[in-house]
Amino acid sequence: MKGSLFVLFPFFLCMRILGIDPGSKATGYGFIEQQGNRLIHIDNGAIFTRSKDALAERLQLIYRELCRLIEQYRPEAVAVEQVFMARNPASALKLGHARGVALLAGINAGLPVAEYSALQVKSAVVGYGRAGKNQVQQMTRTLLNLPEIAQEDAADALAVAICHAHSHHLTGQVNQTNRLAQRTRR
Amino acid sequence: MKGSLFVLFPFFLCMRILGIDPGSKATGYGFIEQQGNRLIHIDNGAIFTRSKDALAERLQLIYRELCRLIEQYRPEAVAVEQVFMARNPASALKLGHARGVALLAGINAGLPVAEYSALQVKSAVVGYGRAGKNQVQQMTRTLLNLPEIAQEDAADALAVAICHAHSHHLTGQVNQTNRLAQRTRR
Repeated sequence: MKGSLFVLFPFFLCMRILGIDPGSKATGYGFIEQQGNRLIHIDNGAIFTRSKDALAERLQLIYRELCRLIEQYRPEAVAVEQVFMARNPASALKLGHARGVALLAGINAGLPVAEYSALQVKSAVVGYGRAGKNQVQQMTRTLLNLPEIAQEDAADALAVAICHAHSHHLTGQVNQTNRLAQRTRR
Repeated sequence: MKGSLFVLFPFFLCMRILGIDPGSKATGYGFIEQQGNRLIHIDNGAIFTRSKDALAERLQLIYRELCRLIEQYRPEAVAVEQVFMARNPASALKLGHARGVALLAGINAGLPVAEYSALQVKSAVVGYGRAGKNQVQQMTRTLLNLPEIAQEDAADALAVAICHAHSHHLTGQVNQTNRLAQRTRR
């Protein structure tokens, strides 16, 4: 009986996650809540910066908005997509600026910040690491029971949040299974 | 008499400047004070991050240390080198992360953040836009009357601070000359 309670426990995990898809023009964000094995959509959107503004001002806007959203929705973890290869050095540098302040917003709020590769995100959402962008977005909508996601960057942010939920869920299950195995061995 | 006072005024400008040379491993910083047409060295050094730490933690260290230094030395302006071309997308992304939080530290402290190209820095320090790294470092030492600058990134940070001092000095002179010309015309 004690053992079955331990196996059931991970299904009642409750965690609010903020997924971020950083970009110098638009930074997508998505909040989801993992309630056991259900995923609940909380909010999504994007922070737009104006190209006529100075770079430091644009980064400040991204940072401030993310801090405000974290304050409003109080997530327990932040997930950001890992970037291995950008198209070219110039776009990699721009992406790096936005990514740096996004990671900083998470850790400065005292939250654990996880990074996932595109392969991990695709595998978690679609179940296939080489899935196309459209497939990921469609599956994100289905998993969160949303009729549509207006903004592409917001959809990507929700996808990385789902990836964190799955990874966390699985880690929880593995940990519980290991504990159960240890108890059985005793 | 009034006119000559206006022409002399820019030589008594006093401004404390923080120059930053961001990097994911080492972020150089240099504080100088411009007193009229003299440049006074205040402090220089580098913030080192450990590669075994998570990216978000390394960025937080850079941000926190820069905020602490700004609080300690209270500069009136921040200058960072502009990057047009990085060697490859991977290093551009790493540099972008550190650069993003460096710019953010400046603007979040309410300071004006200026960016200068490598050409501008070399021209301001050596007087020749195609000068080598060694020439820039040697001239930085000479201009600030320093026997040596222990850290390469700190030397680069001092060079960009000198560039800002020169640019600000010239802008001040041009503005004063324009004002004088307007007064003479009346």
